[in-house]
Amino acid sequence: MITDRLSKESLSRDGSTLKEAARYLKNPGIISIGGGLPTSEYFPFDELSIKVPSIGHFSEQQTHENGQVITAGKHDLVDGSSLFDITTAFNYGQGAGAPQLLRFVVEHTELIHHPPYADWHCTLSVGSTSALDMAFRMFCERGDYLMTEEYTFSSALDAARQMGLSLVGLDVDEQGIIPSSLDHLLSTWDAKVRGGRKPFLLYTVPSGQNPTGATQSLRRRKDLYKLAQRHDLYILEDEPYYFLQMAPYDHSSSAPSTPLQPSTRESFLSSLVPSLLSLDIDGRVMRLDSFSKVIAPGTRIGWVTASAQIADRYAKHADVSTQCPSGISQLVLYKLLDEHWGHAGYLDWLMHLRTEYTRRRDCILGACDDFLPTDVISWIVPAAGMFLWMRVDWERHPRAEEMSISELEERIFQAAVAKGTLVMKGSFFEAEPQKMDQSNGAKGQGMFFRATYAAAPSDMIREAVRRLGLALREEFALADQDVHVPNGSHVNGNGHGEPKA
Amino acid sequence: MITDRLSKESLSRDGSTLKEAARYLKNPGIISIGGGLPTSEYFPFDELSIKVPSIGHFSEQQTHENGQVITAGKHDLVDGSSLFDITTAFNYGQGAGAPQLLRFVVEHTELIHHPPYADWHCTLSVGSTSALDMAFRMFCERGDYLMTEEYTFSSALDAARQMGLSLVGLDVDEQGIIPSSLDHLLSTWDAKVRGGRKPFLLYTVPSGQNPTGATQSLRRRKDLYKLAQRHDLYILEDEPYYFLQMAPYDHSSSAPSTPLQPSTRESFLSSLVPSLLSLDIDGRVMRLDSFSKVIAPGTRIGWVTASAQIADRYAKHADVSTQCPSGISQLVLYKLLDEHWGHAGYLDWLMHLRTEYTRRRDCILGACDDFLPTDVISWIVPAAGMFLWMRVDWERHPRAEEMSISELEERIFQAAVAKGTLVMKGSFFEAEPQKMDQSNGAKGQGMFFRATYAAAPSDMIREAVRRLGLALREEFALADQDVHVPNGSHVNGNGHGEPKA
Repeated sequence: MITDRLSKESLSRDGSTLKEAARYLKNPGIISIGGGLPTSEYFPFDELSIKVPSIGHFSEQQTHENGQVITAGKHDLVDGSSLFDITTAFNYGQGAGAPQLLRFVVEHTELIHHPPYADWHCTLSVGSTSALDMAFRMFCERGDYLMTEEYTFSSALDAARQMGLSLVGLDVDEQGIIPSSLDHLLSTWDAKVRGGRKPFLLYTVPSGQNPTGATQSLRRRKDLYKLAQRHDLYILEDEPYYFLQMAPYDHSSSAPSTPLQPSTRESFLSSLVPSLLSLDIDGRVMRLDSFSKVIAPGTRIGWVTASAQIADRYAKHADVSTQCPSGISQLVLYKLLDEHWGHAGYLDWLMHLRTEYTRRRDCILGACDDFLPTDVISWIVPAAGMFLWMRVDWERHPRAEEMSISELEERIFQAAVAKGTLVMKGSFFEAEPQKMDQSNGAKGQGMFFRATYAAAPSDMIREAVRRLGLALREEFALADQDVHVPNGSHVNGNGHGEPKA
Repeated sequence: MITDRLSKESLSRDGSTLKEAARYLKNPGIISIGGGLPTSEYFPFDELSIKVPSIGHFSEQQTHENGQVITAGKHDLVDGSSLFDITTAFNYGQGAGAPQLLRFVVEHTELIHHPPYADWHCTLSVGSTSALDMAFRMFCERGDYLMTEEYTFSSALDAARQMGLSLVGLDVDEQGIIPSSLDHLLSTWDAKVRGGRKPFLLYTVPSGQNPTGATQSLRRRKDLYKLAQRHDLYILEDEPYYFLQMAPYDHSSSAPSTPLQPSTRESFLSSLVPSLLSLDIDGRVMRLDSFSKVIAPGTRIGWVTASAQIADRYAKHADVSTQCPSGISQLVLYKLLDEHWGHAGYLDWLMHLRTEYTRRRDCILGACDDFLPTDVISWIVPAAGMFLWMRVDWERHPRAEEMSISELEERIFQAAVAKGTLVMKGSFFEAEPQKMDQSNGAKGQGMFFRATYAAAPSDMIREAVRRLGLALREEFALADQDVHVPNGSHVNGNGHGEPKA
């Protein structure tokens, strides 16, 4: 039973006392002078409007010039002009979220994942980072181990460590967690040696993983799910980049090209690798979705999907902590997604995003092909997400014998900064940094850097990669690049770019 | 040292790993392909507008007819037309909140409280319920005791209990916590008998306390602060109702009257009882403010004010959990409070609210005077907030000998529901319900109900109180009321109002 593994904290969540009384509100004619829900008469807002893209005209320019203005009024619900309004959205709400937006999210989840058991529920979150914080508290006690990819989302690592969890990193390849690594870990777990009971909770980012960019194939997901069944695990499936799954990269062309895209909503949906949720016949997956990467991070709205009993405990924790996501955000998303775009329009938007991110990915990959010295750096083509994971062959560094791997990593990071490019050190994302410290530069130990193609404009991405290439050539004392650089402006750093002595 | 009392969890908060790298963003000319901040190019919003009241024309009707529309654009910051825009607000932000809104909140806090030490900081919260959840985790370990008013905000009780804290309730009168009760508790604490170390954390709602409506006088606050110094306590000052402090009630008139109000902003500010924060020379107070009761709960934005080291730890927890409040909410509040109203206009709005809530309080008090049988029920005139706390003399109930106090409370609650009025049972708010169970109706044990005047329209409030009066008269077998009922419509319940056999 999954519920046998709930934390003491979660087991004691019997919900919010006052909601017990709320059921009497259904009595006909009853007047409540009970609940402290303030009257909307004193909300200083009469209307909220947003100017948003029309379906199929999604670019920033098109939205600015021909976007549609949609408006929520204060009393639209009573007026009958909408199912959601300022009076409702701007007041206190349920921990699970407003029924209006929640319904859209449930329909969307059904449409995308068809969860294969009956009593799955969705509950809004105030973002997946908060959902993780709450999920860790739901399934773990201090001192418990949490399993993750050996490199993963650093806020998840920070949150887990700070609440007293130990982390154990699983070996990964370009398809993410290697099942035999998981099986071996669990089959040989020695609670005494480890100082903690056999792990129960697996945190994974199956698509476009942060930072490795790995995407689990369907085969890989099925294998992992089988292992979860065998070892009775619970899986937190964190999927912010799920809809940023991309077309294959055409290596032959270094220029950014218009990528191959699914032409219909149906082909788009069938192109997506099925989620762990869609394989979850036992109710052992909590899926975390987020609007951060597909609408805007500032909405601070996501949702979790899990079995009714788990989703209910999540909502009960929300009731006495985050309460519910911002009602203003909920109203904005409802007006855009449900009333304006609908499910079909939202799928079109997601397809648009996918095209845009594919173009960006192809841009950075083209730049890597053009500018990076492949004798000391390699990378895997991301099939999803926002991140490019680059492996540096540090053993070829002239000072590899005398410096530790962490010192060398910092040195290369600083060399890139000096050339005017900021990338992230792989060690920021390590589940078990002590492991690297102990092996301290053993042969075969990887050194990584993470780059993103989500933020900077395309021409800046190329320039950043060019600078990284310069830094690496200098650091590794390689010959200057003599290839022709298409579209590359030969900016010579910014005064920080002097070669090291 | 306050920091000696931080929880293991809080002590381990060394912040978010990735922010370490963010300082290089300041290097001139640097291109970041490091942080995964998505480009705003793909936020499907070009404008956000709100229609809000002009200063001095605050009513719902005035706002609807003549409100001002203020608009945030996508690139206002770059255009130079505003300091905050969609591009900035809708992206990821700092745990402490966006600097734009945070600055307003800091200025407001300075204006109202003049905290008497140098290094106080404000940090935005996603509402005070979340701030409480985070503060409890910051100062307590499982098994610790938390001190509160003997009746208090039920979500605070739920949150504390569910994370394994024990609650100890302090005796209160119409001015809230009785200092001698606090002193006695701490002076006689026996860790063995109690099964927990001497409490360190005091949670209090000093103004318009929920549910008792009590407001601590300045003298009371000073006495409590002195005790906090003597016993080295840390205080969580939860003040959602601070600006709903009211003019004295004129008992002679039962009709709602226009209450006496301060005529200037200066007299309004000087009419407010000084906060515990304003007395806090040691940095032992975390004040929780909220926009829920003075703007709208759906903003899900509040802020905490505390010493720099405490506020910083709070923000570091936020970085890896709630992240930051909704950027949409932050933008809406910034446009309204900073750009549209400014501090003076916001004070005018708060004075308007105070007038409105005073009118509502006077309405319920008039109805109580008119309809409630004072031989079995009594109440204290609230000096602030949204709640009326009513004490029922259950020992006069015909079945007081044969029923327990909880059974009687439920019976009276149900009798009111049957008449068509929903009030809250006092026991919902008890810090130590086991105490009531043990004494089980000892003489002098109080039975309470909470009513609010914040939600229903004035005429409905009167009717609700009239029905409560009917229920009490029947329950206590009192004679029917024969007073003249001004403005009262003699609706005879709604079919649920049949007398019990």
